[in-house]
Amino acid sequence: MEGNGGAGATRWRISRPSGRAAPLADAGSMSIRAVLDRVFSSVDASGPRPVLTLGSGDPTASACFMPPPEAEDAIVDALRSRKHNGYSPTVGVLPARRAIAEYLSRDLPYELSPNDIFLTAGCCQAIDVMISVLAQPGSNILLPKPGFPLYESRTMFSNLEAWHFNLIPDRGWEADLESVEALVDENTVAMIAETARKLEIIIIADEVYDHLAFGNKPFIPMGVFADIVPVITVGSISKRWLVPGWRLGWIAMCDLNGILKEAKVDKSIENYINITNDPATFIQGAVPQIIANTKEDYFNKILNLLRNSADLCYGKIKETRGITCPHKPEGSMFVMAKLDLSCLDGIQDDLDFCCRLAKEDTVIVLPGSALGMKNWIRITFAMDVPTLENALERIKSFCHRHAKLEA
Amino acid sequence: MEGNGGAGATRWRISRPSGRAAPLADAGSMSIRAVLDRVFSSVDASGPRPVLTLGSGDPTASACFMPPPEAEDAIVDALRSRKHNGYSPTVGVLPARRAIAEYLSRDLPYELSPNDIFLTAGCCQAIDVMISVLAQPGSNILLPKPGFPLYESRTMFSNLEAWHFNLIPDRGWEADLESVEALVDENTVAMIAETARKLEIIIIADEVYDHLAFGNKPFIPMGVFADIVPVITVGSISKRWLVPGWRLGWIAMCDLNGILKEAKVDKSIENYINITNDPATFIQGAVPQIIANTKEDYFNKILNLLRNSADLCYGKIKETRGITCPHKPEGSMFVMAKLDLSCLDGIQDDLDFCCRLAKEDTVIVLPGSALGMKNWIRITFAMDVPTLENALERIKSFCHRHAKLEA
Repeated sequence: MEGNGGAGATRWRISRPSGRAAPLADAGSMSIRAVLDRVFSSVDASGPRPVLTLGSGDPTASACFMPPPEAEDAIVDALRSRKHNGYSPTVGVLPARRAIAEYLSRDLPYELSPNDIFLTAGCCQAIDVMISVLAQPGSNILLPKPGFPLYESRTMFSNLEAWHFNLIPDRGWEADLESVEALVDENTVAMIAETARKLEIIIIADEVYDHLAFGNKPFIPMGVFADIVPVITVGSISKRWLVPGWRLGWIAMCDLNGILKEAKVDKSIENYINITNDPATFIQGAVPQIIANTKEDYFNKILNLLRNSADLCYGKIKETRGITCPHKPEGSMFVMAKLDLSCLDGIQDDLDFCCRLAKEDTVIVLPGSALGMKNWIRITFAMDVPTLENALERIKSFCHRHAKLEA
Repeated sequence: MEGNGGAGATRWRISRPSGRAAPLADAGSMSIRAVLDRVFSSVDASGPRPVLTLGSGDPTASACFMPPPEAEDAIVDALRSRKHNGYSPTVGVLPARRAIAEYLSRDLPYELSPNDIFLTAGCCQAIDVMISVLAQPGSNILLPKPGFPLYESRTMFSNLEAWHFNLIPDRGWEADLESVEALVDENTVAMIAETARKLEIIIIADEVYDHLAFGNKPFIPMGVFADIVPVITVGSISKRWLVPGWRLGWIAMCDLNGILKEAKVDKSIENYINITNDPATFIQGAVPQIIANTKEDYFNKILNLLRNSADLCYGKIKETRGITCPHKPEGSMFVMAKLDLSCLDGIQDDLDFCCRLAKEDTVIVLPGSALGMKNWIRITFAMDVPTLENALERIKSFCHRHAKLEA
């Protein structure tokens, strides 16, 4: 006996009326993990070739993308001290909040206080908290396309309306503020702040990839503009320290004019964290040492690796018929590439492309539709060069095998 | 400028209409942490005596309640292996789910499969997940009184209705099923299962204190009755291994008749975890070794410590005028004691009692109203004997100082 709404489930009052899924079913099934699971299921596990995964922002399978030993040592020290086995305060332990306030303040023209910082279980919980805290019946949120689908999921779960603005591939993925408001400028970050002030909306700045900028443009935190617009920055150690599995993130209230405090957003954050959960206490306890002891050399080494991999990826896509990359990546771990279905024989769309690539060549890439970009794909380049070359060769071979014969 | 709904906050569209707090503000402020924060704020920090905290179920400040070294070693091994720095699968890593399935199956007449297990960030996230997953508009949940207030908070947050049944102090906190249904029996656990089957409701069994039973009655997991009623067990390593700050818990579907699977509860759990968060991956990775290597001696030692402390606590309360303990504790880390306000001069209620005790004697205990038990207090006895004796002496001295003169 299978299927939602069967007799047993109905009797036990756990089936949905008329087979309708709960909002969370839709919300959760939109996640990157859920979409990648679908792509993965196309892989023929009995095949001879290992699966090469270019799907998610998790480079930890590659030996060259290991966390700094100093960060591991910090965890071991915190654990062995036996001072961090108990529950933490709701907002996180003070030394960790202080260390993160100081860390973020390095890039700001003012000092954040530990009271502006809330520790979260990775950046994902920071997103969960902020959307839940700001959710009001009938309100809406402006989201970039492409973006991180967790924003859509949480927005749906909180019954908010999502309005999208485009990021323009040919302008280096700059925000298309013409679609938000008639205002365009050279400096995207400042422009967004100005637009937000004009529209009187607060900004959630997802800076999880903050210092992973390896192009010509430096990383500028949105908090720089906190004097003209309230900014809530979310981030984590996941990407810069290459430890996404450690689940240590933060919310930083950049609130120079006290707007957020006046609306008791800080109290709401605390109330919400009270009924959700916290990062492991000994990981919190390790944060000051992680930040203090990791050397600049380590970060530079990782940036060089990412730059080289991005270049390799961009170059290889150029050689591949049927996909194009409008902009050479200048940060993060991903490149967005556009499918030209008119050149690819019998490929229906991006999901079909990814599932067939998984089946035929055991390479996993993310269908762009997971990010609101139908008929695009997202390729992670954060991996060791031989694996990346191998994967890109397979993608090229797949595309050329499926290329339409020239007329 | 202060206060919700100020002009700045209104302009920035983040104040609540007509000053109303969001549901989560009410929900979060009911938490044990929030109530304890109120009590803590009564402490005069400049006073000479250290604060003695008997408020929460966290014994990790006492040197005698340290986790087993084997558990620490397991974490270090998992971390140093560098195999667990990446994202985990939504449901948790397979070896950990397998180890927990085997661990729980030791006390069951059948075998749980790894597919029945979902890893969560402590038992709190397990509660969050299950209430969110089972929440349907207009539905309600039966909760014990006293209980764990997170259930009330999450219920309120999910817009469910909470109906309460009493646990009867004079019957060893047995459930008053007369108030649920006219059915009383010797065996509470089986009785609850029978009642649930009769009423056709599924059971969420919170077994976070599972093996911390040190009285005459053995611990019987509710999953034993999964043949007559679907049982969802939530638990964690927090209490038995004395590591509440490690945030490693689980959901176990005891679903012998496939009712939960038929209603796709497993899929809903996965979807919900997809948009919330996970325990740190290397802590998940350590679970098999934590379970395999911790010796029975360790558990027995902790049980003996708890039994002795409970006896001490019970005996000392007997000597104290103004509070009574109807039942000697047989498990967990707490004792519930009733205030006799007619004997206590000028004490308004349990919150007043706790705040004045904090102020005058720097001892923290939890007001019973946080658990739905007005004019009760909850005392944690899980600490080293000298501290516990000191704290109980201070409580006694406080009560006797405030005792009404006998007429």
